[in-house]
Amino acid sequence: MSLYCENVDVHTARQRIATARVGHLATVTPANRAHLVPCCFVLDGQVVYSAIDAKPKSSRNLRRLQNLMFNSAASLLVDHYDEDWTKLWWVRVDGNGRTVDDNLELGHALDLLSAKYPQYEQTPPPGPVLAIEIETWRMWP
Amino acid sequence: MSLYCENVDVHTARQRIATARVGHLATVTPANRAHLVPCCFVLDGQVVYSAIDAKPKSSRNLRRLQNLMFNSAASLLVDHYDEDWTKLWWVRVDGNGRTVDDNLELGHALDLLSAKYPQYEQTPPPGPVLAIEIETWRMWP
Repeated sequence: MSLYCENVDVHTARQRIATARVGHLATVTPANRAHLVPCCFVLDGQVVYSAIDAKPKSSRNLRRLQNLMFNSAASLLVDHYDEDWTKLWWVRVDGNGRTVDDNLELGHALDLLSAKYPQYEQTPPPGPVLAIEIETWRMWP
Repeated sequence: MSLYCENVDVHTARQRIATARVGHLATVTPANRAHLVPCCFVLDGQVVYSAIDAKPKSSRNLRRLQNLMFNSAASLLVDHYDEDWTKLWWVRVDGNGRTVDDNLELGHALDLLSAKYPQYEQTPPPGPVLAIEIETWRMWP
């Protein structure tokens, strides 16, 4: 793997990202502030796909996509909290995000999301899908 | 309250932030990428305090503080995941972050953190404490 993985057990990192039910997605606004939302997502090789949620679309729902048009930087964090702090961990992937425009890729992403989340079978995500091309993996501890 | 609270039930938002055991903190790097880490924190009025963890200090541990010297924008997100997606929620506070330099404020922040987290009684946070002065509250749904 040619990607940058500083001190990362890639197998563990991949497993933790792949099985997490929720992640935290950060993009950067045109005013250079972080924009942070929880999201459902699926890992596919070196790409993370995440669908915009099924609530009525508003400018806020699309904020993350607008941000990516100005600045493609995107990060997804998955973590585990436990009151026993020896059991804490997190994994973060950083890369470049984009809206999925290609219909074949969009169908593929939606299939993967529906396979991971049975919830999408009843209510398929109606909005755009975001892709993050992962460049770096980080994990702690 | 003069702060910006769009469609926010401030009581619920405060309660959710105050009682959450872990939050997700985003700052912005000098290269205008988001930097995202989970953190323990405490809410004190319109300020969030968070201690740098007790691991050996490294440049990475201090990255969030270095970021704030370039760009004070900071966001803290608290959320609840449930497989019943009607029960999902998140609360986010956005504001300006800084390192706590004043010894009186530092002692106050450490007292609050230790009161919330018994874990800090055994191992008080040795590193700097970050403060976020909250400017906006957002919540969903």
